[in-house]
Amino acid sequence: MSNSVFNRFKDRLGEVIDVQAAIAVLHWDEEVYMPSKAGEGRGRQLATLSALAHRMFTSPDMGGMVEELLGHADSLDPDQRKLVEETWYDYQRAVRLPDTFVERFAEECSRSYHAWVTARKESNFSLFQPCLETMVELLREKAEYLGYEGSPYNALLEEFERGMRMEELSTLFFSLAPRLIALARRISAADPPDTRWLDQSWDEQSQWNFSLNVLTDMGYDFEAGRQDRSVHPFTTNFDLYDVRITTRIDPRDLFSGLMGSIHEGGHALYEQGFLEKDRRTLLAQAPSLGIHESQSRFWENIIGRSLPFWQHYLPELKKQYPGQLDSITPEQVHRAINRVRPSLIRVEADECTYNLHIMLRFEIEVALIEGAIYVEDVPALWNAKMKQYLGVDVPEDRLGCLQDIHWAHGAMGYFPTYALGNLYAAQLHEKMLQDMPEFWNHIEQGDFSPARQWLRGQVHQVGRRQTASAIIEAATGAKPSAEPFLRYLCGKYSALYGLKNVDMMSSKD
Amino acid sequence: MSNSVFNRFKDRLGEVIDVQAAIAVLHWDEEVYMPSKAGEGRGRQLATLSALAHRMFTSPDMGGMVEELLGHADSLDPDQRKLVEETWYDYQRAVRLPDTFVERFAEECSRSYHAWVTARKESNFSLFQPCLETMVELLREKAEYLGYEGSPYNALLEEFERGMRMEELSTLFFSLAPRLIALARRISAADPPDTRWLDQSWDEQSQWNFSLNVLTDMGYDFEAGRQDRSVHPFTTNFDLYDVRITTRIDPRDLFSGLMGSIHEGGHALYEQGFLEKDRRTLLAQAPSLGIHESQSRFWENIIGRSLPFWQHYLPELKKQYPGQLDSITPEQVHRAINRVRPSLIRVEADECTYNLHIMLRFEIEVALIEGAIYVEDVPALWNAKMKQYLGVDVPEDRLGCLQDIHWAHGAMGYFPTYALGNLYAAQLHEKMLQDMPEFWNHIEQGDFSPARQWLRGQVHQVGRRQTASAIIEAATGAKPSAEPFLRYLCGKYSALYGLKNVDMMSSKD
Repeated sequence: MSNSVFNRFKDRLGEVIDVQAAIAVLHWDEEVYMPSKAGEGRGRQLATLSALAHRMFTSPDMGGMVEELLGHADSLDPDQRKLVEETWYDYQRAVRLPDTFVERFAEECSRSYHAWVTARKESNFSLFQPCLETMVELLREKAEYLGYEGSPYNALLEEFERGMRMEELSTLFFSLAPRLIALARRISAADPPDTRWLDQSWDEQSQWNFSLNVLTDMGYDFEAGRQDRSVHPFTTNFDLYDVRITTRIDPRDLFSGLMGSIHEGGHALYEQGFLEKDRRTLLAQAPSLGIHESQSRFWENIIGRSLPFWQHYLPELKKQYPGQLDSITPEQVHRAINRVRPSLIRVEADECTYNLHIMLRFEIEVALIEGAIYVEDVPALWNAKMKQYLGVDVPEDRLGCLQDIHWAHGAMGYFPTYALGNLYAAQLHEKMLQDMPEFWNHIEQGDFSPARQWLRGQVHQVGRRQTASAIIEAATGAKPSAEPFLRYLCGKYSALYGLKNVDMMSSKD
Repeated sequence: MSNSVFNRFKDRLGEVIDVQAAIAVLHWDEEVYMPSKAGEGRGRQLATLSALAHRMFTSPDMGGMVEELLGHADSLDPDQRKLVEETWYDYQRAVRLPDTFVERFAEECSRSYHAWVTARKESNFSLFQPCLETMVELLREKAEYLGYEGSPYNALLEEFERGMRMEELSTLFFSLAPRLIALARRISAADPPDTRWLDQSWDEQSQWNFSLNVLTDMGYDFEAGRQDRSVHPFTTNFDLYDVRITTRIDPRDLFSGLMGSIHEGGHALYEQGFLEKDRRTLLAQAPSLGIHESQSRFWENIIGRSLPFWQHYLPELKKQYPGQLDSITPEQVHRAINRVRPSLIRVEADECTYNLHIMLRFEIEVALIEGAIYVEDVPALWNAKMKQYLGVDVPEDRLGCLQDIHWAHGAMGYFPTYALGNLYAAQLHEKMLQDMPEFWNHIEQGDFSPARQWLRGQVHQVGRRQTASAIIEAATGAKPSAEPFLRYLCGKYSALYGLKNVDMMSSKD
């Protein structure tokens, strides 16, 4: 009996996933190719489809099947059982949100996204403020629907980093912040690398071609994906065999587009690495965004900003830019792309100051959701915290609180997962080096398959079968911790900047 | 009371239209950007969404609302009433198709599309044959569900050209064919234009840029649309403010891409020209594909292949190709792009032989649907008819029965609308010249707004309020007829080829 129920359940779930895939296609198109006047219509379409997917998923029929299957869990194999349990988890959260709320939320997200695009272009926060106010209201409402312990922020955080709590993050960030600030200050006092050779114009098509080569070498399957350009780089997935990425190309910046490609390529390798048998189910998903971000950060920072990587790729890059890089060595590239410099833009931040950008956003988000501040306070608060953490002045909102898409998309509780991703990546990498002492030799030869295979087995193929924390522990033998990340930063920057006696483990440094 | 019912009805209908828009986005993506391995997943997504849209539209709730509104039609304004009546028409057809059939049909269309792409690439009909067999079976099944008088083909034709009958088309084509064959023969006996100057390589980017300029001049709104490349040019519409076209560019052919753009641009002007108040309803639709095709044909053939058009555009084209067109005159372009030459490919056919390509397809389609022939007979039959009508030998199926996408998409009953489009376009144009004696002067100055405005008022803004036949009669004062088309061909080619005493009105010629 329960086998036929299971099959019917899986079909119904597959249909919900098909509608979610359609939603993802519409979002992708909206950010990549959609003409400018089409925003309102697209918003309505997304609202209709979101409400539909929600209605399908929360139907009493779906709930009944899942409950029945849970009652006969013994007759299910482990994969089936896991799928039913994970569906039950999502179902219970979903039924708390009324259909009308889901539809309104999707419509506001679309409206707010377009307001943000305009506000950012004109660097005018007031054009975005009303939409952000509505968004904060809706998110507070959403938290009430979902329920929470402690801060209402926890209800939102759960969606992106299951099991994580605002209080735990606060403690973590509270201890990390002074160490990162101290390291950034010591680096600021050292000689900066000479990066004047980067002040040239870098042909866009050559940047594009080079990024495609690197992605291919990483193992990204272009027959099951593609790269396009968008304002804000992202990865999206419509199916196991349709995982797409975007990047942006700046002719004045040789590396930002490439690093965007490698970052999104890391996300995409994860999504192309789920198991075929999990396709069109909830198991072909990451258990948290932190773990997802660990993959992008691993490829972007640990691999893409390493010396062995550039020992391999610099000759190829020189071919793309004849005459422009003749005298440049891999060491010069390595120093330039790891330059630590407190700056305005998160996505361009170095590994030392990056998490400070996250902490600032986290604090503002929590205050907004807890009602401790007004939306109109955001620009001033943003600028004050930028001064405090990074010592920089924000000249205009385009380079400040309008730089990120996330709030416009209704995503609060998302930013902290970037910081967690950095920690997870360093911890996975430390173990990878122990397992494969030849690791850097492979990279120097442009062979990424050992790294990719290690991640496939330890992370990708697990899908959503385990939590982020369990994946890290199973892969590394230790609970998630900030220590490998601090050791990694310490080692990397001590060498790059010739720093001595950096002790990031002590809070005194 | 009925006002609140009407609003609820309109909301529900809007949701169906939103899902149909999502389906259209997924189709567009499939043909324009989707990676090669994603076909199976996309097929499933389209099947799910198609079944969903069908289920939503044919729900008893929808039927109940429409019936109730029809019962109180007096309290509706004319637009509301028309919308309800048109919905009722669609509803009655839709409820005859079971959900499972709709889902299976959508899935087969996707599978069959990908088989066709491969079969066409490899010029191997046998790779497509099993899919086409399934498709013919499904279409015969569909005809039985829908019901018909006379031939089952009529059930399919109704979907594309409402009110038209296979028997009427047969009579029309029977009388047209000998006249067209006779004209093509007289032209073959005349001196062909010298087209050796076209045997050059034509930069693809310049072709692309030129086509964008022409589309902009035509009045196509690029803020509410865009042009991309695809194997088979098409127009699609996700909203009044998102009407997209595609074309293909061949570096060996200066005009085929441009003519594709102008053709699809004509379709797109129609869809951008529906009334704002009809947005997200069934009234923002063409009443038939024949009338839709009249718009594309008008712009492509009557405008784009006219001498005044090239008197205006040749200097601009010369700028795109410095040194390649220096000695060429508008008259030479005009003669070259109107060269009549029986050929293999429908979309590249001249106006004289084009309808012969249609007749051949019509005859094969009817025979397949009526069960008079097997799918495996198609290549041989195709080749025999090509010899009979056009006097050409088909060297391979890629250039024969595999050239068109339509059957792969499950569309039979569609081709005849192209021929009707040619007739409607000529009839509209004849009246336009009477209304605007300065017509060609505007074109020569690159001013397309009088033509566009005339079509907006007479055709576009009507939407689906009237049938194709009623639109033609209201616009021209006469029922649809082949005579204006024959007069047009006769005038055009007599002048171009110096023919005397061409009497296409008599069946003796």
